Amino acid sequence: MKRPLILVTNDDGITAPGLRHLIRYMKEIGDVVVVAPDSPQSGMGHAITIDSTLYSKQVIIDKADGAPLEYSCSGTPADCVKLGLQEILDRRPDLCVSGINHGANHSINVIYSGTMSAAIEAGIEGIPAIGFSLCDYSWKADFNPCEPWIKRIVRQALENGIPEGTVLNVNIPKTEKPLKGIRVCRQARANWREQFDKRTSPTGKQYYWLSGEFELLDTGTDTDVHALEQGYVSVVPTQFDMTAHHAMSQLNRWKLND
Amino acid sequence: MKRPLILVTNDDGITAPGLRHLIRYMKEIGDVVVVAPDSPQSGMGHAITIDSTLYSKQVIIDKADGAPLEYSCSGTPADCVKLGLQEILDRRPDLCVSGINHGANHSINVIYSGTMSAAIEAGIEGIPAIGFSLCDYSWKADFNPCEPWIKRIVRQALENGIPEGTVLNVNIPKTEKPLKGIRVCRQARANWREQFDKRTSPTGKQYYWLSGEFELLDTGTDTDVHALEQGYVSVVPTQFDMTAHHAMSQLNRWKLND
Repeated sequence: MKRPLILVTNDDGITAPGLRHLIRYMKEIGDVVVVAPDSPQSGMGHAITIDSTLYSKQVIIDKADGAPLEYSCSGTPADCVKLGLQEILDRRPDLCVSGINHGANHSINVIYSGTMSAAIEAGIEGIPAIGFSLCDYSWKADFNPCEPWIKRIVRQALENGIPEGTVLNVNIPKTEKPLKGIRVCRQARANWREQFDKRTSPTGKQYYWLSGEFELLDTGTDTDVHALEQGYVSVVPTQFDMTAHHAMSQLNRWKLND
Repeated sequence: MKRPLILVTNDDGITAPGLRHLIRYMKEIGDVVVVAPDSPQSGMGHAITIDSTLYSKQVIIDKADGAPLEYSCSGTPADCVKLGLQEILDRRPDLCVSGINHGANHSINVIYSGTMSAAIEAGIEGIPAIGFSLCDYSWKADFNPCEPWIKRIVRQALENGIPEGTVLNVNIPKTEKPLKGIRVCRQARANWREQFDKRTSPTGKQYYWLSGEFELLDTGTDTDVHALEQGYVSVVPTQFDMTAHHAMSQLNRWKLND
């Protein structure tokens, strides 16, 4: 079988340890091309760059033999995927992987996640895609426990194909103990209880830092948050058709037309 | 009945004509507070500001009697909603409306849309929310035909409540003819066929402009794109649980665990 072509990206930037680990795993499975942001893009959601210019250049970060082709891009994770597919790769990749994110992207976080926006962008283009996140925000997080699980999920995705209209959101718990396995889950219902930290600048201008506390609103045992708490890797099939089909009959009872 | 409290925001910025129209309609229905970006935020998706500071200040844009309280914010549309709910409003609003966007947010565009990210952010917080877009990108677009339809949808939403876990994505076609009515639709399957416009700066640096052509991949007659083409206002119930529930059984057949 021909080696698969794998596009690798992330949202923490091209030098992030999580990305370097993911590149190393993917090199064992296929031919790798990297297109990643030149600076951190966390919390960028599905932003794209439409009112300013994009820069991209080939970079050499890993000087070892067999190092992959790498390109940095001044844009968002979604921009990286668009640019990679349209301008950099000479054929459609067999897979796009994004991450490994330094931090969790479970539950509602999928919607704020730059990591997942890159995977979703590839999914919209019909490319099988997976976002990987380790539930450890540290730049020095220990990514080694991720390796066998990520390789297994990637090999299964290449073998079985990812269901159409779907990308995978994979989170790996931070734990000292061995991971227990992989669970297919639904996205837990949760939100952030915002807390704005109000400060005054040296010149007297008031400003805010956005922060908040995660609030789980879901006691289900079939959620990603529950799987992670139990020591499992969570896999949530994630769709970009956001239609709430179940809500349509209720809306059709509204008096919208005379 | 007590007048409802309505939080109004957008992604085109606080001076955008589309926002000014929406404020005027909402003032007839309830008490209005505006928290909107101080500059255009189109294409921001669900970005939030986590690695830099946020500024917000009260502004006076409309000097007429009965003008609403207005605040500009240096952040994204999602930031505006978070800041409005947490720091500016003294009680939970009964409704959050976003728009009127200068341009379409139908089909896959919901995922790139700053307008919809504001509505979704309010929805995540449990606030009934609606995003409004006019399919006309011009700053001088004629918003007048929107008025009766927007008021009707808002009144129906306040009367019936919006289904839980759902926000409404409303698009209004640009047409010379009278609008035919309102249709509850699903999001059409579509994507963008990217075209990067590659240029060289005066100093010799290569850069790109992201552009593309909209590609409809859906021949259904129950979609938002079809409704708009037929001269109807489209209403898509939009959810932020992105779990592809239908894909779970297929993934459970993968060899994920030994």
